[in-house]
Amino acid sequence: MKARIYVTLKNGVLDPQGAAVKHALGTLGFQGVEGVRQGKLLDIELAATDRAAAEAELAAMCDKLLANTVIEDYRVEVLSE
Amino acid sequence: MKARIYVTLKNGVLDPQGAAVKHALGTLGFQGVEGVRQGKLLDIELAATDRAAAEAELAAMCDKLLANTVIEDYRVEVLSE
Repeated sequence: MKARIYVTLKNGVLDPQGAAVKHALGTLGFQGVEGVRQGKLLDIELAATDRAAAEAELAAMCDKLLANTVIEDYRVEVLSE
Repeated sequence: MKARIYVTLKNGVLDPQGAAVKHALGTLGFQGVEGVRQGKLLDIELAATDRAAAEAELAAMCDKLLANTVIEDYRVEVLSE
């Protein structure tokens, strides 16, 4: 089963990496960029075949390792069986 | 206009970061993780109001700065006007 996890910074959390990208885009001549926030993307291949069980396991992975839930939000998406 | 850019490693490109996450998940007791690939997520806020122009500009940003097109693929998604 294939799944994708999106980890993004919560609103209000400072994102220096995003700010650096925004600045770099400006120096390259891309005007009109009002904000950039950078996050993480994880494509996970699971042996599990039950969708609900897989979603629960992926959420547990995020809570324990993949996301810092103090400053980050995550979203789990199961793509295919 | 809000847009999201997904940058992922091309198939066949070694992903040590993903391999480290896979190993760490294994040591935490998550069995059945067959593969992990890590990518980047960029949430961009643009002043542009024309969707087609925004998509073209975002693709140019990826080609010039946000993605290394030798080893990475990218996908642009305009979320809202």
